[in-house]
Amino acid sequence: MYRLSERDWLAYQAKNKDRGRMLITCPDRPGIVSAVSQFLFSHGANIAESDQYSSDPEGGRFFMRIEFDLHDLEGRCEELKRDFGKVAEAFQMDWSIVEAKKRKRIAIFVSKEDHCLLELLWQWKSGVLHADIVMVISNHPDMQATVESFGIPYYHIPVSRENKREAEQKQLELLQGKVDLIVLARYMQILSPRFLQEYPNGVINIHHSFLPAFVGAKPYEQAYRRGVKLIGATAHYVTEELDAGPIIEQDVQRVTHRYDVEALKQIGRQIERTVLARAVNWHLEDRVLVYENKTVVFP
Amino acid sequence: MYRLSERDWLAYQAKNKDRGRMLITCPDRPGIVSAVSQFLFSHGANIAESDQYSSDPEGGRFFMRIEFDLHDLEGRCEELKRDFGKVAEAFQMDWSIVEAKKRKRIAIFVSKEDHCLLELLWQWKSGVLHADIVMVISNHPDMQATVESFGIPYYHIPVSRENKREAEQKQLELLQGKVDLIVLARYMQILSPRFLQEYPNGVINIHHSFLPAFVGAKPYEQAYRRGVKLIGATAHYVTEELDAGPIIEQDVQRVTHRYDVEALKQIGRQIERTVLARAVNWHLEDRVLVYENKTVVFP
Amino acid sequence: MYRLSERDWLAYQAKNKDRGRMLITCPDRPGIVSAVSQFLFSHGANIAESDQYSSDPEGGRFFMRIEFDLHDLEGRCEELKRDFGKVAEAFQMDWSIVEAKKRKRIAIFVSKEDHCLLELLWQWKSGVLHADIVMVISNHPDMQATVESFGIPYYHIPVSRENKREAEQKQLELLQGKVDLIVLARYMQILSPRFLQEYPNGVINIHHSFLPAFVGAKPYEQAYRRGVKLIGATAHYVTEELDAGPIIEQDVQRVTHRYDVEALKQIGRQIERTVLARAVNWHLEDRVLVYENKTVVFP
Amino acid sequence: MYRLSERDWLAYQAKNKDRGRMLITCPDRPGIVSAVSQFLFSHGANIAESDQYSSDPEGGRFFMRIEFDLHDLEGRCEELKRDFGKVAEAFQMDWSIVEAKKRKRIAIFVSKEDHCLLELLWQWKSGVLHADIVMVISNHPDMQATVESFGIPYYHIPVSRENKREAEQKQLELLQGKVDLIVLARYMQILSPRFLQEYPNGVINIHHSFLPAFVGAKPYEQAYRRGVKLIGATAHYVTEELDAGPIIEQDVQRVTHRYDVEALKQIGRQIERTVLARAVNWHLEDRVLVYENKTVVFP
Repeated sequence: MYRLSERDWLAYQAKNKDRGRMLITCPDRPGIVSAVSQFLFSHGANIAESDQYSSDPEGGRFFMRIEFDLHDLEGRCEELKRDFGKVAEAFQMDWSIVEAKKRKRIAIFVSKEDHCLLELLWQWKSGVLHADIVMVISNHPDMQATVESFGIPYYHIPVSRENKREAEQKQLELLQGKVDLIVLARYMQILSPRFLQEYPNGVINIHHSFLPAFVGAKPYEQAYRRGVKLIGATAHYVTEELDAGPIIEQDVQRVTHRYDVEALKQIGRQIERTVLARAVNWHLEDRVLVYENKTVVFP
Repeated sequence: MYRLSERDWLAYQAKNKDRGRMLITCPDRPGIVSAVSQFLFSHGANIAESDQYSSDPEGGRFFMRIEFDLHDLEGRCEELKRDFGKVAEAFQMDWSIVEAKKRKRIAIFVSKEDHCLLELLWQWKSGVLHADIVMVISNHPDMQATVESFGIPYYHIPVSRENKREAEQKQLELLQGKVDLIVLARYMQILSPRFLQEYPNGVINIHHSFLPAFVGAKPYEQAYRRGVKLIGATAHYVTEELDAGPIIEQDVQRVTHRYDVEALKQIGRQIERTVLARAVNWHLEDRVLVYENKTVVFP
Repeated sequence: MYRLSERDWLAYQAKNKDRGRMLITCPDRPGIVSAVSQFLFSHGANIAESDQYSSDPEGGRFFMRIEFDLHDLEGRCEELKRDFGKVAEAFQMDWSIVEAKKRKRIAIFVSKEDHCLLELLWQWKSGVLHADIVMVISNHPDMQATVESFGIPYYHIPVSRENKREAEQKQLELLQGKVDLIVLARYMQILSPRFLQEYPNGVINIHHSFLPAFVGAKPYEQAYRRGVKLIGATAHYVTEELDAGPIIEQDVQRVTHRYDVEALKQIGRQIERTVLARAVNWHLEDRVLVYENKTVVFP
Repeated sequence: MYRLSERDWLAYQAKNKDRGRMLITCPDRPGIVSAVSQFLFSHGANIAESDQYSSDPEGGRFFMRIEFDLHDLEGRCEELKRDFGKVAEAFQMDWSIVEAKKRKRIAIFVSKEDHCLLELLWQWKSGVLHADIVMVISNHPDMQATVESFGIPYYHIPVSRENKREAEQKQLELLQGKVDLIVLARYMQILSPRFLQEYPNGVINIHHSFLPAFVGAKPYEQAYRRGVKLIGATAHYVTEELDAGPIIEQDVQRVTHRYDVEALKQIGRQIERTVLARAVNWHLEDRVLVYENKTVVFP
């Protein structure tokens, strides 16, 4: 869906040809913005967007995201990174500089519910999701034909209590060196700590409730029993503690006593796919920074 | 606020002069609507609004709320109730018939935060909240002048760990026979089971989170630490289990990483006062039915 | 999307096997609900859902929608209709009785934007949209392969200023006797009064603005120029006056000064497809009644 | 309402004691951020918040808002402004530097509806609205007692078709040199161009519809007739063209066919007071920049 016209696509490419993104976190103190903007200006880069946040101007942590344009960015990016090292060191920065036109590589994990997977595939096909979807991995065979019709490899790796360790091993081998982001699009298996440590802040899950309400299994059944008047969905980075990782995005919709569990699920699917796609897009555009199990999202 | 013009007020009175409300719950089975509507028609009543809900058409529970107009309702209400007894018995109904123009009597409990109290007072003064606010009870003296300027008695009853039982006794004596509904408008004391059993489904509380997330104390601090992207408030009937009673209404608002705890509280106050006022109004209009620790709300 | 499991589907079929819907509008007066519910009860039907609305209890118009269960509805539906004629006549009712399991037939019209079409196709394929999509008609060839991959006939009928009359003639011949509802899923041609009179309240359009703001062409450009802080979409029945027919559903989403026209369009597509799908589903479930160029929607 | 505790208030004062705000608009070109941040750093100021927007990085207009802390800001503000003149000249900037703790002076205009006025008074009294409300002017006497109970002067200046010019003259004399912002809190008179040119982008109005839908008189009646499914309110700067000035904030709420005009008004009042208060607060915090009859709002 969202098929961009060729004109739109060319416009996007033109707009992003020389577009770079700089991400910084460091202890807050005077002079950071000045040093960074001075650095960019002296290298001929023009700041197009800039967002910053300080958890506390006195003794807190500073977060910054800059989009800049620099002629021949591709050719000059290494030099830029090398030169920035000195600025970064002076301020004890964690930082990165990326080229906006370089697409991140995604693997999608899915079980039997297809709505989140399909939303991502459609956004991808129509050019809204700027990434390469390099594979889909599932513990069920159901969506093989659909996924392959998009020209994407599909790996069916059954998971049971007994083979869980071997299954994860197979997954890791498939992923090894090939993906930057794993999206759990209603993947109903819990990933082990061993798996997760390979992808810190690199696995996004969609949980079908407004966290921290209704952690764990069957959240719509839980919501029905509690009689809530809004149901929601939450996209978050996966950490070792179940459904407790940094929240990227949430949304809700109003329901009434008339909605049974099936109706809640149907409404919920709409929220889930929207929330997950939004979170994935923000991650791909380097808009999400993680800090103390929370996220700073620069819109 | 919302000062109704005199014309509006007269229109309201005229509209509700002969307006009655009938509330029914019973086991679902064929013929209920027919029997009830036939009863009303044969007594000369015209149905103006009707809502119904069945938890399951086969073996479930049936809920109904009817607004009807009947000439000289006041004079004929007792007769109507007496006659309806036979219909009700045949269907094992829990039921009530009330005159819309008869105002329920409210006591408001409050501690130090005044925004929920003030919202109710303003809606009351301007004629939107159709009830008599007969007293305000507080464990602090702070709002005495404000409340009395509205012509409402204010009782300051300090509550401590030691005197809790006596304090509740004083409250119950003040309330005895005088109120139909107690509204906890940010009252920061927990009512005892002994108190609550005097007012089953008769105490409405506003909790400053989207329940069941962040039960208990300091929900905004909890929300801040968890890094949620929406904060909310919940109006519910009070039961013995803390923050676990039937939910009447909830709402949320979007926040970002920029909001500290103070900012969350400030946004939250807006949600709290709106949600509480909505729930209280629905209760006053007999729109809320309780069932299995949930509510059926007929809008 | 939303692929219902086989179990879900069987549950739906079971639930709707004997489910009928009765729609009524008539001048309001006492006794309607009693007569209708008495009629249904005496015929052995059990009311499962009932909604009603009166534009004014004194001299206004009365609207009613009932869902009922009647054993062997298919076999007894004609008899039911015949018998109801007498009740209907006494109250001057416009009315209909339909079997819930009988699927309406839809034709979708589309131009070049595919997001609304795809949403409807996916909902249809996964069993959420209970209808038969019998054809797609387009003034462009672009979506032929996609539509045919769903097994649906695609008719490419170019429309120009010169051939407009003949083009509509071809469309009408294709539709003749085959469809109950036409959905304009971003069809960028204006239908003539002659065409519309064949399908009164039978053509639903999605307009990409919050009507009545931004009637006509290029609403996102208009919205951008006006600097609105929310953008929206509107599903409405098509009448002779452009974008002025009865509104079925609307929704909006927040935007900021950062959104250029392209960004507004991208956000807008999400709202459009959601709003259109909701309106079409309500129409299919006979939840929408038209009155004085407005709609009564029973949720 | 929102009574801040004394501790909150002291915290606010402490936080803003040395807090300055810098607002800039100029033609976009490389080096602006660098020059500004370098300037602030070299003067010992620490940037606490910074937002920027470019209508187009190539040839567009650049907008910037910075919050900074500078020791002894009050004593050094004049020097800072003088020094910044040179930077500003080089980039052709429109700019201002203000001290956050200096309160703007507001006059509120009102007619007969009190809900917007009361919301502003309550927010002001509780310390959320950081401004001095120096007078209330009304063409009706109704709210004199209420306003004076807050210790604010109330001027009753009747306005008729005949005396309009003299009435405005009286208003201008009262305002002369005393106010920075005029808020029309449901003031039902149209201000003349002559009046408005004294306060460019200095008059905020609340219009009771989702503009540009339902311009002019009786918007709720218009909304009711059109049968919209959401109603809204719009806060905007007043310009000579009626209801066509730059929009600062809008919001909406869902309604159904059940809402008559009175019910729409009642719902609408909630939206109006929230939207107006939000817009006024943003203006007071220098978050709103006007450009081509639109606003840039830095949140």
